[in-house]
Amino acid sequence: MSLDNIRIVLVNPIYGGNVGSTCRAMANMGISDLALVKPLNLNMEEARKMACHAVHILESKTEYANLAEAIANCGAVMGTTARDGLYRQHAKTPRAWAQKAVDVAKTGKVAIVFGREDNGLSNEDLALCTQIIQIPTTLDFKSLNIAQAVLICCYEIFLAFGTYEPIMEMSPEAPSDARERMFAMWRDTLLRIGFMKEDKADHMMQGVRRILSRGTLTMDDIKILMGIAKQAAWAAGSRERSENVDTSEM
Amino acid sequence: MSLDNIRIVLVNPIYGGNVGSTCRAMANMGISDLALVKPLNLNMEEARKMACHAVHILESKTEYANLAEAIANCGAVMGTTARDGLYRQHAKTPRAWAQKAVDVAKTGKVAIVFGREDNGLSNEDLALCTQIIQIPTTLDFKSLNIAQAVLICCYEIFLAFGTYEPIMEMSPEAPSDARERMFAMWRDTLLRIGFMKEDKADHMMQGVRRILSRGTLTMDDIKILMGIAKQAAWAAGSRERSENVDTSEM
Repeated sequence: MSLDNIRIVLVNPIYGGNVGSTCRAMANMGISDLALVKPLNLNMEEARKMACHAVHILESKTEYANLAEAIANCGAVMGTTARDGLYRQHAKTPRAWAQKAVDVAKTGKVAIVFGREDNGLSNEDLALCTQIIQIPTTLDFKSLNIAQAVLICCYEIFLAFGTYEPIMEMSPEAPSDARERMFAMWRDTLLRIGFMKEDKADHMMQGVRRILSRGTLTMDDIKILMGIAKQAAWAAGSRERSENVDTSEM
Repeated sequence: MSLDNIRIVLVNPIYGGNVGSTCRAMANMGISDLALVKPLNLNMEEARKMACHAVHILESKTEYANLAEAIANCGAVMGTTARDGLYRQHAKTPRAWAQKAVDVAKTGKVAIVFGREDNGLSNEDLALCTQIIQIPTTLDFKSLNIAQAVLICCYEIFLAFGTYEPIMEMSPEAPSDARERMFAMWRDTLLRIGFMKEDKADHMMQGVRRILSRGTLTMDDIKILMGIAKQAAWAAGSRERSENVDTSEM
């Protein structure tokens, strides 16, 4: 599994809680290789608390004296930055770089590098990067929490790997003949309960068709709608019968 | 600005830190309307700390007694769930629903609803939703931190609004004639410094072209590459001259 080839590198992280949140975000997206460059006296209790069920990532993290060592065996080194400027003008979004990360990860290691919570990556650290990532934000609030930045990058890479399969409707989209049987039942019932008269029926049914055709209509949905029409017709019939009985008794 | 029409609703949030992190994530993506349904004794100091520069969102949050009130004026109500099951099988990803959110937000309010940190949304709360969102994750670690889940949803909606403009290279992609002038200078220099002989020059230049054509080459890049070729040729010439001088002096 080439998601194993994605390494998250935090340079001089300060807050244990952020490192823990980073572990949880990585776990959500199937990434587990965490490298720290000279962490600054992390509060490990906070880290474990925020890592939640991903504490195994925290415990298997590796530590390095500088960025060059942390990425020495990485083919692609993608550095994140919130700032603009001379050394950052070829930055692209995480989505734009995600396919590159996937391609490189098929055969080698890819590092995604995040700077200090307060300062980001230095120009020296950026110089070691082969790609620069800037996460889309509003211009007013460009600075993401570091674990939030990690999540966005991991999420885009996870999606680019294409292993995630979205939930599929269990019931297939109903075919036209099933829809038409349902509409025919509704037409009969709406006439029978006196919602519309025959001369207005086609017009009213256009409205009903519009309402029921705006979204998806699955076979399960068709069954529910047929059941409603059938039951309404039955209930109207039983009222007619009981009214008939009443009349005959009077 | 129709991002103002996006409302983030947290049902029974427990941890102040998560509410603060939610505010920061919203601010990053230009969303500011936060509604809480019956928050449970939040630690507001933690909330303010994690909200960072987005404390104005925390301070302008609204509170409601139940979800129905929090979303009463919302045209679309998108509920998030990590679980599968009977009432969730028509869930789609945040990316799949983002355009719907943008469309509705042009004229009305859109709520994105998040359940309790420990339990998610109840079936009763899900029944009030018009769309169901499931955030892509690995099957092993489906439960995202709530502020992380908010971030992903806000990020996808922010991108779908299309107001974010990615950084553009300041320098345009170099046109072919500029590239060819640069390669011609490199050819001359590589011959002159003795890196290759004339009979192998075309072959070697194929390698150089491959290396320099793999990524983008901007006009700024061309200028740097021309400068290197020119200077190397000059340095080689000055060595030749000085060697000539040396020779003549010997």
